[in-house]
Amino acid sequence: MMRTRPLKVALLGCGVVGSEVARIMTTHADDLAARIGAPVELAGIAVRRPGRVREGVDPALVTTDAAALAGRDDVDVVVEVIGGIEPARALITSAFEHGASVVTANKALLAQDGATLHETAEKHGADLFFEAAVAAAIPLVRPLRESLAGDKVNRVLGIVNGTTNFILDRMDSSGAGYAEALDEATALGYAEADPTADVEGFDAAAKAAILAGIAFHTRVRLDDVHREGLTEVTAADIASAKRMGCTVKLLAICERAADGRSVTARVHPAMIPLSHPLASVREAYNAVFVEADAAGQLMFYGPGAGGAPTASAVLGDLVAACRNKLNGARGPGESAYARLPVSPMGEVVTRYHISLDVADKPGVLAQVATIFAEHGVSIDTVRQQGKDGEAWLVVVTHRAPDAALGATVEALRRLDTVRGVASIMRVEGE
Amino acid sequence: MMRTRPLKVALLGCGVVGSEVARIMTTHADDLAARIGAPVELAGIAVRRPGRVREGVDPALVTTDAAALAGRDDVDVVVEVIGGIEPARALITSAFEHGASVVTANKALLAQDGATLHETAEKHGADLFFEAAVAAAIPLVRPLRESLAGDKVNRVLGIVNGTTNFILDRMDSSGAGYAEALDEATALGYAEADPTADVEGFDAAAKAAILAGIAFHTRVRLDDVHREGLTEVTAADIASAKRMGCTVKLLAICERAADGRSVTARVHPAMIPLSHPLASVREAYNAVFVEADAAGQLMFYGPGAGGAPTASAVLGDLVAACRNKLNGARGPGESAYARLPVSPMGEVVTRYHISLDVADKPGVLAQVATIFAEHGVSIDTVRQQGKDGEAWLVVVTHRAPDAALGATVEALRRLDTVRGVASIMRVEGE
Repeated sequence: MMRTRPLKVALLGCGVVGSEVARIMTTHADDLAARIGAPVELAGIAVRRPGRVREGVDPALVTTDAAALAGRDDVDVVVEVIGGIEPARALITSAFEHGASVVTANKALLAQDGATLHETAEKHGADLFFEAAVAAAIPLVRPLRESLAGDKVNRVLGIVNGTTNFILDRMDSSGAGYAEALDEATALGYAEADPTADVEGFDAAAKAAILAGIAFHTRVRLDDVHREGLTEVTAADIASAKRMGCTVKLLAICERAADGRSVTARVHPAMIPLSHPLASVREAYNAVFVEADAAGQLMFYGPGAGGAPTASAVLGDLVAACRNKLNGARGPGESAYARLPVSPMGEVVTRYHISLDVADKPGVLAQVATIFAEHGVSIDTVRQQGKDGEAWLVVVTHRAPDAALGATVEALRRLDTVRGVASIMRVEGE
Repeated sequence: MMRTRPLKVALLGCGVVGSEVARIMTTHADDLAARIGAPVELAGIAVRRPGRVREGVDPALVTTDAAALAGRDDVDVVVEVIGGIEPARALITSAFEHGASVVTANKALLAQDGATLHETAEKHGADLFFEAAVAAAIPLVRPLRESLAGDKVNRVLGIVNGTTNFILDRMDSSGAGYAEALDEATALGYAEADPTADVEGFDAAAKAAILAGIAFHTRVRLDDVHREGLTEVTAADIASAKRMGCTVKLLAICERAADGRSVTARVHPAMIPLSHPLASVREAYNAVFVEADAAGQLMFYGPGAGGAPTASAVLGDLVAACRNKLNGARGPGESAYARLPVSPMGEVVTRYHISLDVADKPGVLAQVATIFAEHGVSIDTVRQQGKDGEAWLVVVTHRAPDAALGATVEALRRLDTVRGVASIMRVEGE
């Protein structure tokens, strides 16, 4: 059954992920050939700095002309692990135009312009696979696109960024502040020199857009995702969470509205109960809950980043793309038929935990409770604390639209008796 | 793009799973059509007792002639949710011969005769999908067959039977004995009237055979799986586990040998540390760890049984099978090229926890230690307990071949100073 002409793969990018892909393609060539049904070989590896190519990578394959490599007519599959918008988009487009299928790990590009890429793939009868774009080797894209293709997904909730989970885990376990925990993450290689994409939630938001899109069969772009990073999470927030029997995690949450007619996608820090399985996700690990009508609640857990785990996801997609090339078949294309509107954050229904620094005198609680009532936000619990002339109110609300909760907080800030809003955090996973 | 002639599906079996499949195919017809690219309709539902067909199932579709339904030339996909070996095998074979693809939840048949089914599917160019055969809606078959197709899986370790997990969870939380916990499981519907398949480990062993086969690209049959049920687990075993900071779980374990040249598959009760994520899998939930070279350690968690979750898995496969029918494509077939030998249990390397009831006199520990040394089994820890003329030795070994551990226990039983071997249990997950 084995075909003798090998399938040809162009590898764009040879950094941490690309060099692992090249290494495994070489060391596991026989296994890959057996699983695909034909041998597979690297046609070339495009890099920016040829002097920096890693050990084990055949120097004869290296080129700095990515455009020429991506546009070769004899290439069956192009693997894009450069990242970023350009030149990745132009290279992928050229690959489709020249008859190749594409495997990419590029979450930023998919979240910004996935629809165009899918349309181009469709037009040329090619596959566009991207398991590696979300949570590395943890299978999420394929389960959502295929395993749950006969079910109705209502919610995807997870930790999809390892850097921020490492930082929050350190803050939780050591009582460190954000800056100190970030320094540790940087020193250990969990945070990049410029950590903006991670700590401001851009990386998680791109993944949320991708997951929401496939879960709800609806186009969701990065701009549709409400995004709050964790730079403003304080040691006091973590301590407040602990007193509530909770911990703080940066969550990506994609939800179908109760009436089923719209969806939301958001990334923000939130308190979750210690009893929730996501609370015990430590260090840089990722974990994602998927709730579906028939399947119930599923959880997927594993390393969410790193060269080898990301390469594993890329190679799984590569095997699928090669098999399809060999058999003249195609994997599932974009499924966006549901076209559900993406609602703004204000319409998300959630709960708040609010710590207020208040004047230590009678009637403050009544004033505060009135503000909540005026905005239609029902209070679950209030705890009063005070000593030495300082007084605190810790309020946990029932579920209410985020807009009403936000307006409540704004009104509280204007009360003379409220000296400050020390902490506001959403409560999830209950 | 939508084709007007609908794809036709024959449903064999309309029990807990089949009736859910029929219900969802009716209520979610539009979604399924959009995801497949063509409408899909039920051509017929084969049942044994037509009088017992459930609410929401169209009586006009019901037939007692399963053979005629499975052999209809106009049927595109046959869904088999009858279970057992016959008539399921004959019906599936007939379906392939008449040009249909097959989606099955039949773990027993796959574990006994999967190779023949795969060969028949291959011969007729049809798909054989079976995600629902292992852990219901938890995606395991597709991730192992496809997501990890470019990786090397070294170990699959998990809780794949909900009934036994429920029983062990109750024994652990309430101190109940096996019989009492089984009664509770039966009363709550977690155990069947005849619980043999579950409590003797046959169900888990069939799943282990299926998982080992796809993980290691090697044919593994039920007979290749070492199987011990949990009927001999006592309240004392659970208490011993607790003293070690462990709990007892019925585990399915599929491993590649350290030298990579053989594999093993086994199902037995084992102690695992409370810190291991599988320790916190409660009630009838399932969870499976997969360890692969590049991906690292992944975990999949969810409800492992039940009508709706199993139907979710069936429908995911049904969508894939229908898409392939529509596009003239095929999903991945059997991958058994590695042909690794399956080693017997004696060659499995593991650890033992052994409680010995011994004579309360000097020299016993030295005698016992000598027996271990003679069999080449290294002792990790020994704890001596004794009061009122009773004495106990609790020995935990280092890793050693199971055959050596078994021979050690046999020799211990023959010692005059050993009154009895109160408990022997393997220790995993460390």
